[in-house]
Amino acid sequence: MNEFDLIQSYFNWEITDPSIELGVGDDAALFNLNPGHQLVTSTDTLVEGIHFFKDTSPSDIAYKSLAVNLSDIAAMGAIAKCYTLSLTLPKLDKKWLEQFSSSLKESSKLFHVNLIGGDTTKGPLNITITMMGSIEIDSSIKRSGAREGDDIYVTGDLGSAALCLKKIKEGDKPSQIELNSLNKPIPRLELGSALRNLASSCIDVSDGLEQDLSHILRASNVGAIIDTNKLPLGASVNNYVKDTNDWSMPLCGGDDYELCFTAGQSMRDKISALAESLETRVTRIGTINSQKELEVIGFSGVRSSYQHF
Amino acid sequence: MNEFDLIQSYFNWEITDPSIELGVGDDAALFNLNPGHQLVTSTDTLVEGIHFFKDTSPSDIAYKSLAVNLSDIAAMGAIAKCYTLSLTLPKLDKKWLEQFSSSLKESSKLFHVNLIGGDTTKGPLNITITMMGSIEIDSSIKRSGAREGDDIYVTGDLGSAALCLKKIKEGDKPSQIELNSLNKPIPRLELGSALRNLASSCIDVSDGLEQDLSHILRASNVGAIIDTNKLPLGASVNNYVKDTNDWSMPLCGGDDYELCFTAGQSMRDKISALAESLETRVTRIGTINSQKELEVIGFSGVRSSYQHF
Repeated sequence: MNEFDLIQSYFNWEITDPSIELGVGDDAALFNLNPGHQLVTSTDTLVEGIHFFKDTSPSDIAYKSLAVNLSDIAAMGAIAKCYTLSLTLPKLDKKWLEQFSSSLKESSKLFHVNLIGGDTTKGPLNITITMMGSIEIDSSIKRSGAREGDDIYVTGDLGSAALCLKKIKEGDKPSQIELNSLNKPIPRLELGSALRNLASSCIDVSDGLEQDLSHILRASNVGAIIDTNKLPLGASVNNYVKDTNDWSMPLCGGDDYELCFTAGQSMRDKISALAESLETRVTRIGTINSQKELEVIGFSGVRSSYQHF
Repeated sequence: MNEFDLIQSYFNWEITDPSIELGVGDDAALFNLNPGHQLVTSTDTLVEGIHFFKDTSPSDIAYKSLAVNLSDIAAMGAIAKCYTLSLTLPKLDKKWLEQFSSSLKESSKLFHVNLIGGDTTKGPLNITITMMGSIEIDSSIKRSGAREGDDIYVTGDLGSAALCLKKIKEGDKPSQIELNSLNKPIPRLELGSALRNLASSCIDVSDGLEQDLSHILRASNVGAIIDTNKLPLGASVNNYVKDTNDWSMPLCGGDDYELCFTAGQSMRDKISALAESLETRVTRIGTINSQKELEVIGFSGVRSSYQHF
């Protein structure tokens, strides 16, 4: 099968966004931004053995590839629009491709994004998506906007994906809910977009809260104090922490894809109302200060957030 | 080394384009299009053992990763602006990274494009670039615009990269000029951009002229006749064809990254003048017709253009 036939068979779907003039099938795609808007773009790669296990279903791989990229767009406060897919495959496995393609198509519909181009090559399994979104100029939420006295928030709960990974590595069988936290992260698109007039800074928690919040602190040239007792935990992580007093899962575990953001104290009511209207857990976990470091009350262990190498 | 340090050390360069508001270092990059312009985007992956040999220098890999992506933007008639890089590396090899980074930086300067974001992950070597460019709305050159009676042109010469690859695979030592045709393709950016008011369709010849021209024919719902005797050949390919009468290198060999385009006959003088002013070889090789197939005078062999699987 040549690349053309592969794309036609598995990846040439109807475009549902009129701002996309040309999608899959030419040398490049064409996309129009609304007046007064700017392009927001980010790329993330998933590699077998690093981001997912060899036995992870093609369906879950497709979903997660899209979700982790959407999470970055959400962290800027932007609206995700379209994406390119670079798919490196060890062989032409029609069953694998059917499942991957079907899940990617369904997930794209769910999140209102369109596939507009890509590349397929032969080699060790590697899925790279570059997501493109748009936002009104001067409205994006950067890492550099945190100010002394700002509250620090986090969405959802932390550590579930890392705990699931730990269980699998140790030979335990995680529950379906635990597996979903690893394979089916929910990008906080609506919340991220609504935060663009409320938050002073934002990042998605993909490498562990401690490391990702530190990126905000460094970019904003501030410090912070957070309290482990305030960290939002799911049932499994809550039990694990009770049993072990090991806070490294929610503090340093990666793959959460929740948003960590800061906002002035005057925004508390608005943020509570927003969380309620979107039925999303949003927890205040600490405060920005001028100390230039991250102090974590209740944790004196090694800060072992995810290291890529 | 964590990802942050790796990016700071090797991939955080000064942004030279004021339309880029935010580059490397946040969840996503921010980029402004000029009024009346649209985004042009394309992605290409290079994999070890498929697109380059294990002993190809990091410098050549970096250059080629950029050039093949620029070639797609050129084929739309657009101006390349910025790109994201997803780099999957088997290990943290500082010497490799220094050479790759240095070449990518230099090549980016050469082609006036800025790195604005990316991802680094651990795994089998894989380099995915997503290139973004801009073009005035309604000015892009699509594959679908070829009309009966149009001339067919190709830039540069054909088959040199494929012949070099053949030599290496057969244990022969190619010359530096031959190696350059494989490792240092020249994206036809200036010419592509100048063609946007002259050409009716365009594609970059990455999978072989026969296959890529066929994409134009299919998208435009037309046929074509081309003549092997008119194909532009470099010295090595010319000698090879004389010796063997094997036209498969220039006809079906991939990795040329030249532009194949069509234009009305009334454009001949303008295209000649453009080729002369840009000191770029542009050769008329045939004509679009209504036959719905590609006839190649002087070639009756197997059409063996590059198949990805």
